[in-house]
Amino acid sequence: MNAQGLSINLATVREQWNLGEAVEACAKLGIKAVDPWRDQVAKFGLNNSAKVIKDNGMQVTGYCRGGMFTASDAKGRAAAIDDNKHAIDEAAALGADCLVLVVGGVPQGSKDIEGARLQVAEGINAVLDHARAAKVPLAIEPLHPMYAADRACVNTLRQALDLAGQIAPDVGVAIDVYHVWWEPGLAEQIARAGREKRIFAHHICDWLVPTKDILLDRGMMGDGVIDLKAFRGMIEGAGFHGPQEVEIFSAGDWWKKPGEQVLKTCIERYNKFCK
Amino acid sequence: MNAQGLSINLATVREQWNLGEAVEACAKLGIKAVDPWRDQVAKFGLNNSAKVIKDNGMQVTGYCRGGMFTASDAKGRAAAIDDNKHAIDEAAALGADCLVLVVGGVPQGSKDIEGARLQVAEGINAVLDHARAAKVPLAIEPLHPMYAADRACVNTLRQALDLAGQIAPDVGVAIDVYHVWWEPGLAEQIARAGREKRIFAHHICDWLVPTKDILLDRGMMGDGVIDLKAFRGMIEGAGFHGPQEVEIFSAGDWWKKPGEQVLKTCIERYNKFCK
Repeated sequence: MNAQGLSINLATVREQWNLGEAVEACAKLGIKAVDPWRDQVAKFGLNNSAKVIKDNGMQVTGYCRGGMFTASDAKGRAAAIDDNKHAIDEAAALGADCLVLVVGGVPQGSKDIEGARLQVAEGINAVLDHARAAKVPLAIEPLHPMYAADRACVNTLRQALDLAGQIAPDVGVAIDVYHVWWEPGLAEQIARAGREKRIFAHHICDWLVPTKDILLDRGMMGDGVIDLKAFRGMIEGAGFHGPQEVEIFSAGDWWKKPGEQVLKTCIERYNKFCK
Repeated sequence: MNAQGLSINLATVREQWNLGEAVEACAKLGIKAVDPWRDQVAKFGLNNSAKVIKDNGMQVTGYCRGGMFTASDAKGRAAAIDDNKHAIDEAAALGADCLVLVVGGVPQGSKDIEGARLQVAEGINAVLDHARAAKVPLAIEPLHPMYAADRACVNTLRQALDLAGQIAPDVGVAIDVYHVWWEPGLAEQIARAGREKRIFAHHICDWLVPTKDILLDRGMMGDGVIDLKAFRGMIEGAGFHGPQEVEIFSAGDWWKKPGEQVLKTCIERYNKFCK
């Protein structure tokens, strides 16, 4: 089984392993890239995380996650900006290709999604110099509209590209099939993202029918309705040839299986359905 | 409590009452408009349904639902077209203002959402003459993207208007806040819908945080994040002044409460949060 071009977002095996165990298990199976989450790094230690990643020759296709810029008051927004600077520093220490931004939803008690979107633009602008100094590209991740209220008020690739375009030429996007597979005009927007050189990451999984949980029921590639080969064709057609990063939150299924079985399945399905 | 301008989609009280009971309970509280579902009409009988609606002087703000045009083979698509013609005839018998079209998702076994979208256009075209002859306007309802796979591959107001525009000037849209509240550029699209005279219905409820079930956890107006007054302002600004129709699927909450309490709450919340 060939894992060339495959990356594992470590949330995929978060219930099975700590960061060090997960990285070593990936390496053992020939997987050469990972994307860790901040809480995993915090638990394993930043220096230890950087070391195990380096020792195993891993590419870090992203760091999850910055963002969450929206808040009901100025103090909360300032705290978010400060926290994002820490995330940028951690991403730099890990040598991550980008910091993935899950931008934040509608603040508690608010019904103003357009106001939240303005807060996101302000927040990204406020951390951009810090990110440039640290040489950490920022990747806005549009999230599925079902997360608009509580996680991210940027909900289409088109909107993410509009936002990135308003901010700066060096702000990009992380394109996760789960979030945008349904988007009308997707092909044009992926092509546009390529022309604007904004594709910093490509995440994969599948959309299950039925979807039993709004957050924790993502499917393994091949088990759902997304045409992953066609999607990858659009991504490569747009000039991005970086790894495909598997990110699966699956409380009822994949998080319950042995980690090695999950990784082997990722490799198998990646080869069968994704390229 | 003033129920002027309020309509009740009868799915909101489907677990409590049959169609006749629901219509009479609405009338008793001064509610002058309803939108029944086909299965409710089938159970109560079409003639009986038409009679109780007429006897109670009810406006029928829509009939739920036509659509489901997508299928994995030509036979399935032909059956859907035939079934939609029956739905149109029933809508005419009930004097409905429109037939709401939930257009159908990605067919079983397919991963081709763009192909499904073409099937939808073909399906609507195939029933349009029948609808015109019956004087039943067709209203495409864009559904939230979380239903793209299994219920409707038309997922934004913008996309629904593009589709309607491709088909005919007299095809419209049903705008449900639950499905489109998050849509980037919503204000422009509602204004466009008004200019094109395509707003045939306005449905209301609320988006809950957290949302516990992808289908059956809609919120009562005021309990979620949608700015319903601002939304109605856009709808009226676009020239639609028809009733606001409450449509709440709520297996864990409102379907378990006494129907009269649900209706009274709808009236109260409508007055407080929606106008």
